[in-house]
Amino acid sequence: MHENDNVAVVVRTGGLPAGTEVRPGLVLREAIPQGHKVALATLPEGAEVRRYNVVIGHALQEIAAGGWVNEHRIAMPGARELSGLPLSTRPQEPQLPLEGYQFDGYRNDDGSVGTRNILAITTTVQCVSGVVDFAVRRIKEELLPRYPNVDDVVALNHAYGCGVAIDAPAAPIPIRTVRNISRNPNFGNEVMVVSLGCEKMQPARLLPPGAIPMRGAEQADVVCLQDDEHVGFMSMIDSIMRTAERHLQRLNARRREPCPASALVVGMQCGGSDAFSGITANPALGHAADLLVRAGATVMFSENTEVRDGVDQLTSRAATPAVAEDIIRELAWYDDYLRMGSVDRSANTTPGNKKGGLSNIVEKAMGSIVKSGSSPIVGVLAPGENVREKKLPPGLVFAATPASDFICGTLQLAAGMNLHIFTTGRGTPYGLAECPVIKVATRTDLARRWHDLMDVNAGRVADGEIDIEALGWEIFHLMLDVASGRKTWAERWKLHNDLTLFNPAPVT
Amino acid sequence: MHENDNVAVVVRTGGLPAGTEVRPGLVLREAIPQGHKVALATLPEGAEVRRYNVVIGHALQEIAAGGWVNEHRIAMPGARELSGLPLSTRPQEPQLPLEGYQFDGYRNDDGSVGTRNILAITTTVQCVSGVVDFAVRRIKEELLPRYPNVDDVVALNHAYGCGVAIDAPAAPIPIRTVRNISRNPNFGNEVMVVSLGCEKMQPARLLPPGAIPMRGAEQADVVCLQDDEHVGFMSMIDSIMRTAERHLQRLNARRREPCPASALVVGMQCGGSDAFSGITANPALGHAADLLVRAGATVMFSENTEVRDGVDQLTSRAATPAVAEDIIRELAWYDDYLRMGSVDRSANTTPGNKKGGLSNIVEKAMGSIVKSGSSPIVGVLAPGENVREKKLPPGLVFAATPASDFICGTLQLAAGMNLHIFTTGRGTPYGLAECPVIKVATRTDLARRWHDLMDVNAGRVADGEIDIEALGWEIFHLMLDVASGRKTWAERWKLHNDLTLFNPAPVT
Ligand SMILES: [Ca+2]
Ligand SMILES: [Ca+2]
Ligand SMILES: [Ca+2]
Ligand SMILES: [Ca+2]
Ligand SMILES: [Ca+2]
Repeated sequence: MHENDNVAVVVRTGGLPAGTEVRPGLVLREAIPQGHKVALATLPEGAEVRRYNVVIGHALQEIAAGGWVNEHRIAMPGARELSGLPLSTRPQEPQLPLEGYQFDGYRNDDGSVGTRNILAITTTVQCVSGVVDFAVRRIKEELLPRYPNVDDVVALNHAYGCGVAIDAPAAPIPIRTVRNISRNPNFGNEVMVVSLGCEKMQPARLLPPGAIPMRGAEQADVVCLQDDEHVGFMSMIDSIMRTAERHLQRLNARRREPCPASALVVGMQCGGSDAFSGITANPALGHAADLLVRAGATVMFSENTEVRDGVDQLTSRAATPAVAEDIIRELAWYDDYLRMGSVDRSANTTPGNKKGGLSNIVEKAMGSIVKSGSSPIVGVLAPGENVREKKLPPGLVFAATPASDFICGTLQLAAGMNLHIFTTGRGTPYGLAECPVIKVATRTDLARRWHDLMDVNAGRVADGEIDIEALGWEIFHLMLDVASGRKTWAERWKLHNDLTLFNPAPVT
Repeated sequence: MHENDNVAVVVRTGGLPAGTEVRPGLVLREAIPQGHKVALATLPEGAEVRRYNVVIGHALQEIAAGGWVNEHRIAMPGARELSGLPLSTRPQEPQLPLEGYQFDGYRNDDGSVGTRNILAITTTVQCVSGVVDFAVRRIKEELLPRYPNVDDVVALNHAYGCGVAIDAPAAPIPIRTVRNISRNPNFGNEVMVVSLGCEKMQPARLLPPGAIPMRGAEQADVVCLQDDEHVGFMSMIDSIMRTAERHLQRLNARRREPCPASALVVGMQCGGSDAFSGITANPALGHAADLLVRAGATVMFSENTEVRDGVDQLTSRAATPAVAEDIIRELAWYDDYLRMGSVDRSANTTPGNKKGGLSNIVEKAMGSIVKSGSSPIVGVLAPGENVREKKLPPGLVFAATPASDFICGTLQLAAGMNLHIFTTGRGTPYGLAECPVIKVATRTDLARRWHDLMDVNAGRVADGEIDIEALGWEIFHLMLDVASGRKTWAERWKLHNDLTLFNPAPVT
């Protein structure tokens, strides 16, 4: 905690009873649950409540020293204005490069590197998903065993259909998301597409010839279900399987080779946060993010509503004023989007967050933002944009997305993520078929109960067993191992969330 | 076609070449593709173009008799104002009741009847979907074979997560959709829920005790993944399987018994329409809808943008002025929803529609609306509402939904649909796990190519082999057979689209 803070968090499992002397002269006036806050001094009505050296609220009534500071007793501050922000004002001290760190990956022709070797089947429209699921089951049973160097076959099904108003101002977001996921480094640029035929988002609109790199072809291999050649259902399945086999053959010939850590594109997010998120898992991830940046990698953080209250920290850390302006533009767009639906950033917090001790979105945001570490922010992606297409330099990138785990993960896949790391306090069995997901528990009791779902126990920080820096290094090394093929728990159980598109456009 | 129409549709496969004399004195001035329109008389610039006795556009230039009337040559009329509409003005001649028609269904305690006997697993939040998919695979392999009277086990996965702003004005739509799908008649009110624990949409908020009928319990059986009792992933899977088995045992004891046709709740929609939709499949379905209404059943039509241009037909057919006002309210809400996203109803049409001869949404709507038949409209459902909960009388119901096949089908499941019928011109391999789907092709060539995906060939009407009325009766009888257990093609291949929620609320 920061020296200016006037609250502290109870870390003990089960919380602490009234009467406990938590530090010399400070006695709890009431029982306080684990993860919740105690007032370190008496807070008069209207007083600022500070955590992370930030005002997370104002006391709604006097709270005596040793009292429980919770969401019912403090008022949330208004959102920071998006004008007059500091632009790239923080001195950018060059960090010492970290050299020599490698992992074994699959090199792609375009210079990107896969951490997995997966055949992905792109779909232009929701209508084909039942057929593609059927075909993928048969490919896995009948073809995949003959191509042992291929890790998996994945249907890139999604909810994009002709209902999405394709000419609406916001429609480019889901379209570029599907396009950019197809070129994720883990798919080796072996793009194949299943199309219906009558859809609005035709294959040539989704993947204009030449617009994305493909191996061995100018255009994507397309199977169109409405083609005259398809007589009977099995002829569609046969076409998809024949096309898939061509790509499986080429994917199977690939081998892992040593690649510099700079080829990693790591997507970070958190889900089901608690008050420990900001004390254990997220600061350790922030340290690992700094190590990745020093090793030349690209690291993305996201979740608009969870950075909104720390916008001044981000704009001041921007590498250039132009990057700061990009951050402001994305957050302003998102403010408008929420306002159109008559909500604001406070819609983010959940009952689980509050039960876990997070009083409001300001407190949650401060605990979330620390996973971005301390590096300068070198670039910004709008939802669905891609780091390579946008030619961003390596380093820390703000990929603007909703905080929804599924939407954020889908957008980070589109951004080019080849490794995903996910911190959780309450616990979520999140996983992706397209990319390995390392899961970090914020508390030891969660890590114990979910021993075969959580890859890292950051609760050891609160238990005094390890410090933030050492845990950051441990996570950094684990990332290199997983990038080299070590399976995460979510991979072992094959826990695969569906892709979830961010579609701010209306549907008809 | 109507006697006032000044265009006609070319029905011949492959279209007709220039020079063809299509009727005495009318020679084609250019080749016209199948499904496209020919001018029956010279249309001066600005002239009304009439099909279905409705103005579908105005000529942008003079079109000579025998000329091709397509989307480039006519301008779409503006949308009908929603004020000053005729309210329940059409004389409601009582239709002769059809008595004695039955099917073999599964009777539920609440009076509803299932056409299938399915164990559905409700989920409160997207986060649990990977775990539920894992559990359902094991239930199907290990438990289902021991319960032969149960047709299937279905995970009711969806994209609702804490990202959906739960207090937004539009948020009740996806919530009530998930709630009402859980009580679909095909699930026998054997409600079981998998919850994460920290989600905003807690089980008691999704399914308040007493709010929905459940067999053998006051509250839904809930498996909560974050419960302390769950140590290790397999303990979660075991809990879900144990809970599922209790419900499988009860479902397995059920038997089909004769039920009146009035227990049917039929959802109708179309997808991938062409110019034949309004000539063959949809009019035949309209006739079948009239037969169902005469037999006392509930029949829903939907797809807001496809009725918007025929709103005056609907309001005049409303059984009462109050029903007409409900129709107007839903369509006005939807106009606003589209306007917020800067689009309008014309976003509905696809390249496939246009290639198939539908010049614009007005023409498409007129061909779509005929599937509602000629009965009075006795009730209106807002998106996600349910016929039983709303205590609608039997008869023809307008269930207001987007036209998107997946969203419309999901909302009709929530409305209480136990049988789905779907007409298609271009062809779509649509199917649902929750309810049988009868698919009707508008053209013979599609029915021939997709011989094992299409259940009915309405192209026989254009071929002169059957008339609308006889085909309507054929569809009516097929519905009773399918309701009694006869499998549709989509069921035989297990083509199962994912549920797709209509969520007009923003995500954070
Ligand atoms: Ca988060
Ligand atoms: Ca998240
Ligand atoms: Ca339709
Ligand atoms: Ca539709
Ligand atoms: Ca799925």
